[in-house]
Formats: sequence, C-alpha cells, structure tokens
Amino acid sequence: MKLYDYFRSSAAYRVRIAIELKGLAIQRIPVHLARGEQRRADYLAKNPQGLAPALELDDGTILTQSLAIIDYLDALAPHPLLTPKDPLRAAKVRGVALAIACDIHPLNNRRVLDYLRERLGQDDSGVDAWIHHWALQGGLEAVERLVEPGPFCFGAQPTLADVCLVPQLFAARRFSTPLETLPKLLAVEAHCLAHPAFAAAEPSRQADAEP
Amino acid sequence: MKLYDYFRSSAAYRVRIAIELKGLAIQRIPVHLARGEQRRADYLAKNPQGLAPALELDDGTILTQSLAIIDYLDALAPHPLLTPKDPLRAAKVRGVALAIACDIHPLNNRRVLDYLRERLGQDDSGVDAWIHHWALQGGLEAVERLVEPGPFCFGAQPTLADVCLVPQLFAARRFSTPLETLPKLLAVEAHCLAHPAFAAAEPSRQADAEP
Repeated sequence: MKLYDYFRSSAAYRVRIAIELKGLAIQRIPVHLARGEQRRADYLAKNPQGLAPALELDDGTILTQSLAIIDYLDALAPHPLLTPKDPLRAAKVRGVALAIACDIHPLNNRRVLDYLRERLGQDDSGVDAWIHHWALQGGLEAVERLVEPGPFCFGAQPTLADVCLVPQLFAARRFSTPLETLPKLLAVEAHCLAHPAFAAAEPSRQADAEP
Repeated sequence: MKLYDYFRSSAAYRVRIAIELKGLAIQRIPVHLARGEQRRADYLAKNPQGLAPALELDDGTILTQSLAIIDYLDALAPHPLLTPKDPLRAAKVRGVALAIACDIHPLNNRRVLDYLRERLGQDDSGVDAWIHHWALQGGLEAVERLVEPGPFCFGAQPTLADVCLVPQLFAARRFSTPLETLPKLLAVEAHCLAHPAFAAAEPSRQADAEP
C-alpha cells in the first residue's frame, strides 16, 4: 500500500499516527500541497477531490478521506482498535473525532485560507481571527467538555479521538491559537506525544518536512 | 430516544433519513437554529458544540455529530445497514459521506455564512460565490466521479453516501448552486426522493418547517 502524504497536512498526519500505532509498513509518497501538486492531472485521476491523504491499495484501488482510511486500517489491522467495538463508546469517540474533522479542520484548511486572502482580501490578522474563532468556539472548547478522564481522550488506550486531536493542536500552535482554555486537551496531547507512534508521525520527522 | 432536530439543517436531515429508513420511533425536539436556540445554556449543557442534531438516549446520554449518531443507529437497528460490513465497500461509502460532511457542508453552514456577512462584510453575491465554490470544486464535482453505477450512490441499496448526498443537494438548490455538471448525482437524488423514507425526512415535511 502507498499513502499519498504531506508532512504538514492535519488529515495526513492522522493517518500516519494510525499507521504507526498499528505498526504497518506503508510507503509514503509526498504530494506537495503548498506547490499545488494535488491539482496535477495525475493526482486528480487518483483522488478527484485533489486533497491529501489518499491510500492506494496493492491492486490500485484508491481510498480517500482520512477517517475512512483509518476505519479501513482498523478492519485490516485491528490492534490497537482505534474505534471501540461497543456502539456507545464508538459513538462518543467518533463524536469527538468528527467535531474536529468536520467542524474545525475544514475551516482552517490551506485552500480555505487561500480563498480568504486571495478572493476576500483578508490580511494576516483577518485570517488569524478566522482560524482562532473556528478552532476554539464550538470547536476545541467543546471538545474539552466532551473528552473523558485520561490519560488519552477516552481512557487508557488511544482512539480515533486522539488521532484527530493531536494534529489539530499541532495546527493550532502553528497558527498561534491561544490554548490556555484547554487544560484537559493539552494534558492528553502531552501524553500522546510521549508515545513513540504519535512521535514518529509528527510533521517535523517526515522525509518531506520543511522548516 | 429524542432527536434534537431542525428542519433545514443538512446534518439533522441525514439523521432523519437514517431513522426513517430503519423505521425507528424517535421523538423530535426542534432547536430553532435561525433564532439561536442552539446557543441557549440548556442546549449547550447537552451539546457543547451548540449544533444540531444531537441524540438523547433514554438514560440521558447525549450523542453528537450526525455521522456518529448514524453509525450508532446502524449498530442498534442494522436493517438496512447504511455502512456495509465489507471493509473496502465501507471505505468507499465513507469516503463519499465524509467528502460531503467534512469538505462541503461545514463551509456552507449557517454559522460560517453569518461570519462572512457580519465580520467579513460579504454581500449576497460574495456569499453565493463562496457557497458555489466549495459545493462544486473538490466537492460535488469530485463526488460525481467517486460514486458507482446506481440507482443509489453505491448500487441497489441506500447507504450513508446517499444519506449525506440528498441533504447536500437540498442545500445546494436552496442556495441556487448550478448543478448541471452532476448528472449522476441528480439521478441518484431523484431515485432517493422517490423512496418513502427519504421523502418523509424532507425539510418541508417536518413539524417545525417554515416557508
């Protein structure tokens, strides 16, 4: 299998954490989003959305969307299982993962920030205000209230919620979003980053990393 | 169980379709998003995100996020199963559902359009351009290429992909997004809307519907 990856993409970072937690050997193919490689015809033929990540199976089948890819990996390599089997536990874990993946990340995605700058004339302060607003209100401040006692988001084992949280906090730091209202999430993040699988997936440790 | 619902919310509409397909009896409690009822303290105590829908179980447990709620209902009432058991089929269905739920819907959500008008000074034409851009490019035009032969998005039975597609096309029509580049999706939509469960979930048929 091959993962079409970009070191700084939050969505690709989620899949990398899942791969590392499960100890899978999956080739990484960088798609340089900042240089627009995701809009090249050969990549669009693989993923019509023009987004990273995408997972290419050995028969050439392409899977898109980070959470769909991680669910697939959960079925393929269920140790550790990132979405619990119990339906109620699964719903709570997915509730946090989707709060991040649907209601925070898409709003501070590169393509949206480019639109704000290029088509709506926003300067750095306008873009920063947008990012901080969606990251916090109805976003991470709500997630802070949805997680359970730690050390991970939902107890003693990492789940899909942690896999989504750590990249979102990475993005928040990169955009200098103030995080002092999120003590529980910061404690979860510190616990995750001390785990070798989460550490191996960090953007700065990828082959395509840039300063 | 009780569903906190709003007739015009795409995310709530998804859950209503799932409920109708499965023939579940679930009380609907309207939360009037246009009047800001989702920001009242009593609702925020239930769903800290301040979004609809939310599902309240009989013991008072609250589940948030439409796709997490639908997965829970799939476990509780698996006929029909909206995400297939086969991991590869599931990944393809989820890929389409998440393309809509992550990369289209959050960008034309009411709260985002309010921000564009109130904080970025956009008029109707600026807001419409934003909506159409995200609905089509990398959005529904990509989904058009990801679905399989019909009559539903993935064959003969409705799945989570259809449950997400129909409300997104409803929103697109409401915003007058041009849809002529999406013949496969429009054929799927017509097939779905002829199905009594999809029809019963339509916004205009809800008790809280307004003109």
